[in-house]
Amino acid sequence: MASTRVGHGASVARPRRRGRPGYDLETLLAVAVTVFNERGYDGTSMADLSRRLGISKSSIYHHVGSKDELLRLALDRALDGLFELAAQVTAREAAAIERLELLVRGSVGVLTEALPYVTLLLRARGNSRTEQRALARRREFDQIVAALVKEAEQDGDIRPDVDPAVTARLLFGMVNSLVEWYRPSPGQTGEALADAVCAVAFDGLRGRRADQGSG
Amino acid sequence: MASTRVGHGASVARPRRRGRPGYDLETLLAVAVTVFNERGYDGTSMADLSRRLGISKSSIYHHVGSKDELLRLALDRALDGLFELAAQVTAREAAAIERLELLVRGSVGVLTEALPYVTLLLRARGNSRTEQRALARRREFDQIVAALVKEAEQDGDIRPDVDPAVTARLLFGMVNSLVEWYRPSPGQTGEALADAVCAVAFDGLRGRRADQGSG
Repeated sequence: MASTRVGHGASVARPRRRGRPGYDLETLLAVAVTVFNERGYDGTSMADLSRRLGISKSSIYHHVGSKDELLRLALDRALDGLFELAAQVTAREAAAIERLELLVRGSVGVLTEALPYVTLLLRARGNSRTEQRALARRREFDQIVAALVKEAEQDGDIRPDVDPAVTARLLFGMVNSLVEWYRPSPGQTGEALADAVCAVAFDGLRGRRADQGSG
Repeated sequence: MASTRVGHGASVARPRRRGRPGYDLETLLAVAVTVFNERGYDGTSMADLSRRLGISKSSIYHHVGSKDELLRLALDRALDGLFELAAQVTAREAAAIERLELLVRGSVGVLTEALPYVTLLLRARGNSRTEQRALARRREFDQIVAALVKEAEQDGDIRPDVDPAVTARLLFGMVNSLVEWYRPSPGQTGEALADAVCAVAFDGLRGRRADQGSG
């Protein structure tokens, strides 16, 4: 359940840092995100978190000022990963279609490494200022994607018959749908998944190579 | 907000069937689904529905036995649409790749025509027996898709380098993502959207024709 980035701390009753009482913020956050995803943020109280963690509410308040702060930290974990990626990709000197493919590939990486955080982000509906702020950052990211799609289309590297904004949404609709079914397993690495997404998204189900005579 | 299938009843204060007091079941259902999508099913009480409809709870109970029955009717509306489509498509004598494309195209149609119902279905997490039953039917539909993908791959019409189950999930991940952003508007018909989805999914962003020299 826990992402590779945060380790397997979520289901471990004792903290991994010896000699320190209670949980560290990282583990607290991982457990909180798991519970938010299970019960919904609004359906989770600090008392629920306290019970799940097996520590007192005041121990939680030692790390964070409120449940909302946990939400903000969790959503930023996902968003910071995406924006860090976008900054790296847009700084590259490469054709727009290549930068777009790097962005898609990297997004699958962020998603698989920070799965519970991205899941929480994608379920945010704007029910609080924290969620609204997260949705605004998501829209900003979508605009980066749409701009890349448009540039690639102007370069003649993307089919001209589909609207860039619609294309960007379909592309990330496919990427984001991974949170619904992807679960880390030995047989399925994030990289193989990124290959599959890029193969389908850029060359289509029919496949370019299959079309050129392999059958 | 209301789907084209259920008409614009959701925002109409008076029932369309003259001489009948209160709402008919169809309009009641449309309003209930809208509120479930806004507040979450668990976060909606019969008192909330009564307030939103401007009728008494007993008027609601005239039509349905419980909130759960409203949920079941709403989820079945979406699922029945998808299974009716699947039955029509699988009965066709056509290559698997063509049946798959018909299924994708038709699913976009079901989604755009019954948008609030499909939205509710895709957000169901299995929190009750009714939701679990709906999830089981969704899995059954997914298996129909995966079987078609596999058949098309055996025919050599789909690239052999991507796992059929993964492909089926990515394909419907793209389709299902429409509920996140598609809103009926004069400029954007469901058919144009189905064209865009099929263009990207089957021939890829790069596009087969663009590849053959149009630029």
